[in-house]
Amino acid sequence: MSRLTLFQRATGVGPVLRILAMLLLVLAVIMAVPLVVLIIEQNSDLWAFVYAELVTLVSAGLMLLVTRQIEIQLKPRQMFILTTLSWVTISTYASLPLVFGAPHLSMGDAVFESVSAVTTTGSTVMVGIDNLSDGLKLWRGLLQWVGGIGIIVMAIAILPFLQVGGMRLFQTESSDWSDKILPRAGGVAKSITVVYLLISVIAIVGYWLAGMTPLDAVVHGMSSVATGGFSNYDSSFGIYEDKPWIMWMADLFMLLGAVPFVLYIKMMREKTLSSFWKDQQVRGLLYMLVVVILGLTVYRVVRGVPFFDALTQVAFNVISVVTTTGYASDDYTLWGPLAIVCFFYLTFVGGCSGSTSGGMKVFRFQIGIIMLINQLRHLVHSNGVFAQRYNGRMLTDDVIRAVIAFSFFFFFTVGAIALGLAAMGLDLVTALSGAATAVANVGPGLGDTIGPAGNFSSLPEAAKWLLSFGMLMGRLEILTVLVLVTPMFWRK
Amino acid sequence: MSRLTLFQRATGVGPVLRILAMLLLVLAVIMAVPLVVLIIEQNSDLWAFVYAELVTLVSAGLMLLVTRQIEIQLKPRQMFILTTLSWVTISTYASLPLVFGAPHLSMGDAVFESVSAVTTTGSTVMVGIDNLSDGLKLWRGLLQWVGGIGIIVMAIAILPFLQVGGMRLFQTESSDWSDKILPRAGGVAKSITVVYLLISVIAIVGYWLAGMTPLDAVVHGMSSVATGGFSNYDSSFGIYEDKPWIMWMADLFMLLGAVPFVLYIKMMREKTLSSFWKDQQVRGLLYMLVVVILGLTVYRVVRGVPFFDALTQVAFNVISVVTTTGYASDDYTLWGPLAIVCFFYLTFVGGCSGSTSGGMKVFRFQIGIIMLINQLRHLVHSNGVFAQRYNGRMLTDDVIRAVIAFSFFFFFTVGAIALGLAAMGLDLVTALSGAATAVANVGPGLGDTIGPAGNFSSLPEAAKWLLSFGMLMGRLEILTVLVLVTPMFWRK
Repeated sequence: MSRLTLFQRATGVGPVLRILAMLLLVLAVIMAVPLVVLIIEQNSDLWAFVYAELVTLVSAGLMLLVTRQIEIQLKPRQMFILTTLSWVTISTYASLPLVFGAPHLSMGDAVFESVSAVTTTGSTVMVGIDNLSDGLKLWRGLLQWVGGIGIIVMAIAILPFLQVGGMRLFQTESSDWSDKILPRAGGVAKSITVVYLLISVIAIVGYWLAGMTPLDAVVHGMSSVATGGFSNYDSSFGIYEDKPWIMWMADLFMLLGAVPFVLYIKMMREKTLSSFWKDQQVRGLLYMLVVVILGLTVYRVVRGVPFFDALTQVAFNVISVVTTTGYASDDYTLWGPLAIVCFFYLTFVGGCSGSTSGGMKVFRFQIGIIMLINQLRHLVHSNGVFAQRYNGRMLTDDVIRAVIAFSFFFFFTVGAIALGLAAMGLDLVTALSGAATAVANVGPGLGDTIGPAGNFSSLPEAAKWLLSFGMLMGRLEILTVLVLVTPMFWRK
Repeated sequence: MSRLTLFQRATGVGPVLRILAMLLLVLAVIMAVPLVVLIIEQNSDLWAFVYAELVTLVSAGLMLLVTRQIEIQLKPRQMFILTTLSWVTISTYASLPLVFGAPHLSMGDAVFESVSAVTTTGSTVMVGIDNLSDGLKLWRGLLQWVGGIGIIVMAIAILPFLQVGGMRLFQTESSDWSDKILPRAGGVAKSITVVYLLISVIAIVGYWLAGMTPLDAVVHGMSSVATGGFSNYDSSFGIYEDKPWIMWMADLFMLLGAVPFVLYIKMMREKTLSSFWKDQQVRGLLYMLVVVILGLTVYRVVRGVPFFDALTQVAFNVISVVTTTGYASDDYTLWGPLAIVCFFYLTFVGGCSGSTSGGMKVFRFQIGIIMLINQLRHLVHSNGVFAQRYNGRMLTDDVIRAVIAFSFFFFFTVGAIALGLAAMGLDLVTALSGAATAVANVGPGLGDTIGPAGNFSSLPEAAKWLLSFGMLMGRLEILTVLVLVTPMFWRK
C-alpha cells in the first residue's frame, strides 16, 4: 500500500477529494463559455479567464491523479465534510477570474462576488456593471445558474439524509438511500437537472420575446430561475420601469424557481398542475404573498400611487425578496416605514424547501405555527394529545425539534454576524439587515449603504469576508457547517 | 337565589370580581400616601388624587358589595382571567390621578405612564420630571414598587401552576397547590413580601447614606429593587455622574431585584449565601454580565475613555438594561455601533424568573442552549439519547417545548407591535426597539426619539396605546393573555 492510501484509510479524505475534483471539472467546462465569448469579443478580460481555467484544470487533474485508485463510497461524516467543502471549493475557484483581474477588485471583493453568485444571494460589490464585458456578465449569470441547481440537488438528495433542520420531512423514496447513496441520488439529480434546464430555457426565451437583448435574456433568465438576483445593470430591474410586462414575467420565473422541484417531476408523471396547489408549502407561500402584496399595495395607493403601478412594483419587489432573488426595480426603502419593516421581516422568510431559494423556508414557519397552536391548546386542555400533520404526513417530535433548532441557529447566526459587522463600524440597520440578507441569501439589505438602491462595495474588507461566510452558512442550512466545528464530530 | 348569584354560577365571574376589589382596596391605601404628602406640600395635584381615591374606593366598595356572598375558589380558567384582569384593572385605576389632571397629560399619556409604572417598565412620557410635585414623584415610585411585588408573587405562585412558558420548571412544594390554592399561595406571598420590604428598606437607606435626598432615596430605592427604572430626573441617573459610588450601589440593588426571590428565603433558612451561587440561573446571569461588561468596557477604553469611567458607565447601563430596570446614566447610543447592537440584543434578555425583572429571562436562554447542543449531538450520533438537566432537575420535553413556544411568541409579539408602530409612521429602529423595550419591560429604546436620552412623549397617541398593550403582554408572559383570545378557552 502506498503512503497516500494509508492516509486516505485513516482520514477518509479520498472520496471527498475525488468528488471535489469532478465538481472542479464541471466548473472548468462552464468557465469555458465566457472564455469563448471573450475571445469573440476580443476583450482583455480574456487573460484572467485563461489563467483561471488553467489553475482549475490543473487542480482538478492533480486531485484526480492522486485519488485514481479510490472507490467512491461515503459515510455520513464524509457527506457533511463534502457538502461544506464543495461549496467552499467552487466559490474559491469561481472567484479566480475576478482575482486575476477581470475587473479590478480586491481579494475580498472577488471572493464576496463569487460567493454571492454561487450561493445565489445576488449582493454585489461591482459598480458600473452596465459596462462590464459580455463574458463577465455571462460568467456572473452562469455561476448563479450553477449554484441554483447545486442547491436543489443538495436539498433533495443530501440534506434530508443528514437530517439537517427538519429536512427529514422531505425524505422520499428518492432521498432515502441509506447505503446505496450515489446511484439513486444520481437518478434524481438527473431528472431535476432536466427540469431546471427546461424552465431556464423557457425563462430565457420568454425574456427575449418580451424585449430583452439576447445577453440580458440569458443572464436574467438564469438568475431568475436560480432566484439569484444578479442583473446586467447597476439599477437592476429598474431599467425595465417602462416595461411592466417584463416585471410580471420575472415574477413568474422567480416563483418557478422558488417551489419544490420534485413537484415538477410529479406534475409530469401525473400530467396535472394540481400537485402544486395540493402542496401545503406552495399554498402557504402563495397565500402569504397575496396578503403581503395586497397590504403593501393599499399602503402605496393610499399614499397616492396609481393602483397598477403600485401593484406591479410591490409584487415584483416582494416576490424578489421572498423568493430570495434580490432584484430591485425601485428603492422600496422610500415607500415608508411600514414597507421597510415588512421588507426586513420578509428577508427571513424564503421560498419552499427543495427549490433554489434561501431563507428559513416556508415549511419551517408552517411547522412553527402548528407547534404554537398546539402549545396554546395544551395550556387550555393540559391533558390533551393532539396529532400534528404537515402536508399529509405525521409530524414527529424530532422533526419539530429539528425545525425549531434550525430557526434558533438561524437567528443566532444572523445575530452573531450583525454583532461582528457592528464591531467593524457598520450601523445597526446596515449590520442587522446585511447579516440577514447574507444568511438568507436574498441580496439587498436596508439603509443608505446596502439598500436596494445601494451596493456592498463601500463596506470594509473584513465585513465582506464575514458576509461571504454568512452567505455560505445560510446556503448550507447552518447546521451542516456547525456540526463540523463540534468536538463530537471529530471524535472516533 | 338572586339574579346575581345565577349570573355568577353561569360565568364564574364572582370570585374574580371579589379579588379585584381587594386589590383595588390595596391600591386605595397606597394612593393615600401621595395624597397625604400633597396635603403637606399644599400642591394643586392634590385634587386629582382626591378624585382618584374616591373613584377607586367607590368601585372597590361596590364590587365587594355585589360579591359579598361569594366564596373565593378559583379554577385554572378563572386564574387566567384574574391574572390578566388584575394587571389591567390596577393599571387603569392607577392612571386616574394622571387622568384627573396631575399633571397635564392626554388620556393615552396617562395610561402609558401608569402601565409603564405598574409593569415596572420605566418608559416615560413625562418631560420636566424634576419639577413635578413630591407627591407625584412618590406616586410613580410607589406604583413601580407595588408592581414589583405583584410580579414576583405572580411568577412564584400563579404562572407555574398555569404552566405558562416553561414556568412549570419552578413548581415547588409552595407553588404546587392543585386544589388548596389560596392558603399556600398566601403563605409564600407573605414571606416574599417581607423579603421585598427588607431589601427595599436597605436600598432606600443605602441611597440616602450615599448622598441622595430622602425623596430621591425613597423613589430610586423602590424603582431599583422593582427593576422599574422611574427616576426623579429627566436625565435619570445622569444626575449622579460625579458620584460613581451611587451608580455602583444602584448596580447592586438592581441585581438584588433581578435574582429569584425564593433564594432569599432559602438563604435565610440555610443561613448561607451559597444558594445564590449554586443557582444555575443566577450564575448564568452573572457570567453573561461579566462578559458583556468587560467587552464593552474594552470597546470604550480603546476609544479613549479612562478605564474606571468606562467600567462604571458600562456596568451601570448594561445592568440597568439586562435587569430591565431602564435607568440611563449616559446616552450609550453615542458609544459606537457595537454598543448599540449589544444594547438592542440585551433588551430581550431580562433577569431571572421569580424576580421583579422582565424580558425573556435567563433560564429560557439556558434551556434553549441546552436544547441546541443536544440537537447538534443528535446530528452526529443520530441514535443517541441524552438526558437533559437544568438546575439539578430533569428537563422534561414539555418544559422545553413550552420554553421554545414562549420564545417564539415573544418574538412574534415584538414583531407584530413593531409592524403596528411602523404603520403609525415610526422608523425601523424606533419601531423595533420600542416594541422590544415595551414587551421586555425594559424602558428606553434606541434611536433619536425613544433612546436613553429621549422620551416617549412625542410618539403618536395610537403608538402609546399599542406600547401600553405591549408592556402588559410582556408582563403577563404573553401566553397568559393569548390564551384568553383562543376560541378553545371559552368553549365548555
